[in-house]
Parts: sequence; C-alpha cells; structure tokens
Amino acid sequence: MTSGGSLLLLILDLLGTFAFALNGALIAIRNSRIDIVGVIALAMITALGGGILRDIMIGNVPPETFRDWRYLAVAAGGGLVAFGFSPHLARFGNFIELFDAAGLSLFAVTGALTALDFGLGGGQAVILGAVTGVGGGTIRDVLVRKVPSVLSSTGGLYAIPALIGATIFVVGHGLGANQIVIAIVAAAVCFAIRMVGVHLDLTAPTPRGTKD
Amino acid sequence: MTSGGSLLLLILDLLGTFAFALNGALIAIRNSRIDIVGVIALAMITALGGGILRDIMIGNVPPETFRDWRYLAVAAGGGLVAFGFSPHLARFGNFIELFDAAGLSLFAVTGALTALDFGLGGGQAVILGAVTGVGGGTIRDVLVRKVPSVLSSTGGLYAIPALIGATIFVVGHGLGANQIVIAIVAAAVCFAIRMVGVHLDLTAPTPRGTKD
Amino acid sequence: MTSGGSLLLLILDLLGTFAFALNGALIAIRNSRIDIVGVIALAMITALGGGILRDIMIGNVPPETFRDWRYLAVAAGGGLVAFGFSPHLARFGNFIELFDAAGLSLFAVTGALTALDFGLGGGQAVILGAVTGVGGGTIRDVLVRKVPSVLSSTGGLYAIPALIGATIFVVGHGLGANQIVIAIVAAAVCFAIRMVGVHLDLTAPTPRGTKD
Repeated sequence: MTSGGSLLLLILDLLGTFAFALNGALIAIRNSRIDIVGVIALAMITALGGGILRDIMIGNVPPETFRDWRYLAVAAGGGLVAFGFSPHLARFGNFIELFDAAGLSLFAVTGALTALDFGLGGGQAVILGAVTGVGGGTIRDVLVRKVPSVLSSTGGLYAIPALIGATIFVVGHGLGANQIVIAIVAAAVCFAIRMVGVHLDLTAPTPRGTKD
Repeated sequence: MTSGGSLLLLILDLLGTFAFALNGALIAIRNSRIDIVGVIALAMITALGGGILRDIMIGNVPPETFRDWRYLAVAAGGGLVAFGFSPHLARFGNFIELFDAAGLSLFAVTGALTALDFGLGGGQAVILGAVTGVGGGTIRDVLVRKVPSVLSSTGGLYAIPALIGATIFVVGHGLGANQIVIAIVAAAVCFAIRMVGVHLDLTAPTPRGTKD
Repeated sequence: MTSGGSLLLLILDLLGTFAFALNGALIAIRNSRIDIVGVIALAMITALGGGILRDIMIGNVPPETFRDWRYLAVAAGGGLVAFGFSPHLARFGNFIELFDAAGLSLFAVTGALTALDFGLGGGQAVILGAVTGVGGGTIRDVLVRKVPSVLSSTGGLYAIPALIGATIFVVGHGLGANQIVIAIVAAAVCFAIRMVGVHLDLTAPTPRGTKD
C-alpha cells in the first residue's frame, strides 16, 4: 500500500507506528528496571514486531518495515520522545489511545492486504491482518512478563476489532470493491469498535466457571 | 507426507492437531483472565506453532499448516469445543492425554521427514522433529507465563520421546527402510515412551545439587 | 566470515558459542525445575538463537549456525559440560565472563557483516549485529521467565557495547577499511566496553521518575 504511493496512507501508517512506539516505551518505562536501550528496543518491537512476524510468515524478508529506514526512525523516535518526556505524557493519554487505535486499524488492513498480495487465502489474510495489528504488543508483553493483552479480557477489546477490520477488507477485496474505499471502511470500523470497547470497557466472553 | 496422499496419515495428523488444540485451550481456560479470542488463539498456537517454527527455519513459507485451511479449521474447532464444553472435558482427560501423545509422536516424525525433504542433515532433522512436536506448547507456555513444560522435569518425559522418535525415523530413513513402516515404528516408540513416562511419572536427570 | 576461511575467526566464533552455551546452561541449572534436556536446549538456544533470529530476518535459511554441525556440537557440548560440572564451574566465573564478552563481541561483528553481505543498509546491519549478540540470551531469559537482561539496567552494559561494536564495523566497512582489521578493532572495542561495564557496574540512563 505504501509502495502504491498513497502519501495519505504512508502518513497514517507512520502515525500508527509512532503511536505504537510511544505506547511500547511507556509500558517499558513503568517497569523500573528497564534502561534507555530497553525502552527504545521495546518501542521498536511494539511498533514493528507485528509487521515483522507477518513478513516472516509469508517469506517477505527482510521484513518491509525493517528494510524501510523511515519506519525504523519513526519507531526509535517514538521511543526517545517517550523516554525524554514520560512525566509529561500522562496528560496526552487520550491522544495516545487514539493513535494506538489508529495504528491497530491501519496495521490490520495493511497486514491483510500484504497477505493477499502474496497469494494467501482469505482466512489466512484475516489472521495475518490481526497478527500485524497485535503482534508487536504481544512480543512486548512477553518481554516485560505480562500476560499479553490480546489474550486477556481486560482493557477493552483488542484482537476482535482487528479481526473484524481485516475480515471486512478481505471480503470487500474479494467482491471487487475499490481498494482505497474498502481499506478506509475496514479501518474505520476497527477503529470505532476499539474506541467504543475502551470507553465502555467491553469484554469478550470468558469460559464458563472461570472466576473473575 | 500429507501431500503423499496417505489418507490415514492425514487423519492421524488432524487428530493430533485437534488434541493439541484442545490441550492448549484447556490450559488457557485455567487462566482466569483469558477470553474466547485468547482461548482460540492459544489453541491454534499450540496446535500449529511447532510446524510453523520448523517451516520458518527451513524456509518453507508460508508454513504448511498455515497454508492448509483444514489444519486451521481443526485447530480453531478444537479451541471452540474446549471453550464450550470445558466443564465436561475433565472426564475425557485420558483421551486428551492419548491424543496429545499421538500428536507429539506424529509431529515428531512428520517434522523430521519435512526437514529431510528440504535437504537438512540427520542431526538437524532430529532437532526439527522435536521442535515440531514441542514448539507449539512451548510458545503457549511462554504466552501464559509458565516455565515451558519441555524444559521441566515434571509431568513425565516430553522432549525425550520426541527426540527418540525423530532419531528412529531419521536413522531408518538413512538405512533405506520403507518410509511408511519406519514412520509408524518411530511414532509408536515415541507414543509408548510418552505414555509410560506419564503413568510412571518418569523424570529426566536434573543437575546435581539442585533442590527439588 | 567463517566461509572466508579464516581459521582464527572460526576458532574464536566457536569459543564464543561455547561460552554462550555454558552461560545459558548455568542459568538453566539455577532454575531447580529444569532437567538435562532443558539445560542442553537452553544452552543451544543461548548460543545459537541470536544468529538464527538474524538469519530468519534476512532470509538466510536454514540459519547458518543451524546448518553447520560444528556450531550445534559445540553448543550442545557446552550444555553437557555445564550439566556435568556445574558445582565446579563457580571458580571459573571470570573465564566464563571473558568468553561471554568475547562471544558478544564476535557475534555483533559477524552479525553486522552477514547483514551487509545480504545487502541490508547500515542501520539495519547495526541492529542485526546487536540482535545476533543479544538475541540468544533474550530468548533464554523469556523461557526461564526473567526480564531479559538486555532490557535491564542491571549487570553492566550489554546491548550498548554490541551496538557500538557493530557501528564501528559498519562505518569502517563503509569507508573501505580492511575487513579483518576493522572486525578486530570493532570486536575489541565492544569487548573492552563490556568488561569495563561489568567491573565498574556501569548502567545506562533509566527514565526519570523511576524508582530503583
């Protein structure tokens, strides 16, 4: 999509990368034993990890966001900004949440598109869309020893909006819809579900008999 | 092996996938903070993760079990069944254990075969057979923050039967034995050692001076 | 570099592999629930994991150290030695530290060189040099449920010397310096910073407002 030359999409994609990087760095900073190298490493892993996992799965190596220095620079920059200004970032919590939801939505759609471009089936493209959206945060959570938020029923829905957004895109793509239109619709739906989920604190069903 | 058209082996392989998925989902369900998406994700990771790791290592991408929708469907189905019926599954504990051992045995053998087919040496094929058998459960354990059972001296032997089964297959294959026969023998030995290990609660040696 | 036929570099590389394997096994042994298979598996993962991650990222599969039986044998041997002699290895702590720093330095340089050989840019080569140096230990730490030491501000600098060594090599390489000379200089600087960091217990900056 980026290579398609759409400047708008590139800018949104880089904004999502920046938001994911801020988010990863802030989670790292809350862990008192992590130093500046760890903060920047976790920012980059959060921002780029999902796309890297996807590209390794489809054989698109070196991974796209790793090859392109703009993604590396924006991800490292997000980590540095968070490192330098973390005490002041609390008041921007809502913006970070917005960017994070934007990143999730864009990554779910561009992840699904990349998978389709590499000839994978629709079901696989949906899964890889979701992996692109949630993969970086999952690696980050494993590294800082949290149960990955994608598995958990707390903090609002996370994987579900990504799966729905990727599904809309894959179905629309299969029906021959205009690619830019369906990408925007799919990302917007993902974004809306994510934001509603955060604000209403929605949770997916948990197994019967589980104690909350 | 699947592509070799052997219906019996395909069925056994899918049964092993289903058993691994049930097993992964049940472990997820025991963790009270994991929702339905997490349960199905862990079921699929447990069932497919080992083969995916192997295929990434040998450059067989997109990974075989990820390309083939039957594996994805069976793995997701195992997760859904476990989610819906978890309170009733306790009484099938022995069946799940049997299927799990069958999955381990089949994956160890098909993993080693795939590695040989891609031109790797015998030692590498043994390691990749074991990785195919234990890899999915290891990723699952990392995600739910357990020390991976493959590293641990509790719960009966797990990596050792897989290594022995893969070794028998690789040696037999190198000696020119009939591929189906040696596959069955290798899987049967792995299965037998695993089941004996579970029932006698066998453990591998631990380092001297370690407190149990 | 190995394929360049330099026997000295091969020997140093295998010594580094051995030291990383000893180190991984000793950390596994400290965890009382890990058996002999787990000790050897963690030794091999610590010694080979960084190079495997790098090679998967650049599409050099099967990974170089996995294809070459000498690396597998040396890594498994290091695990076995640690398993058999762990009570006696305490007195060799300084040697293990030296070898570990040597492994870090050599892996950072050979990792960066491999990335350049595969056509990656300078920034990417620096990152992959560091990944080669610290990746194996990071996977090990995740498996035994420690916060990866590469992220942490304790235990002396770890990622920073690797990043500096890889940077020196990449810059020297870009300026056309003799490859062997610049490799030795880069590895020596990395080694020196690592050893000084350990002995002075240097730490990288941590975020403001974090409690130590």
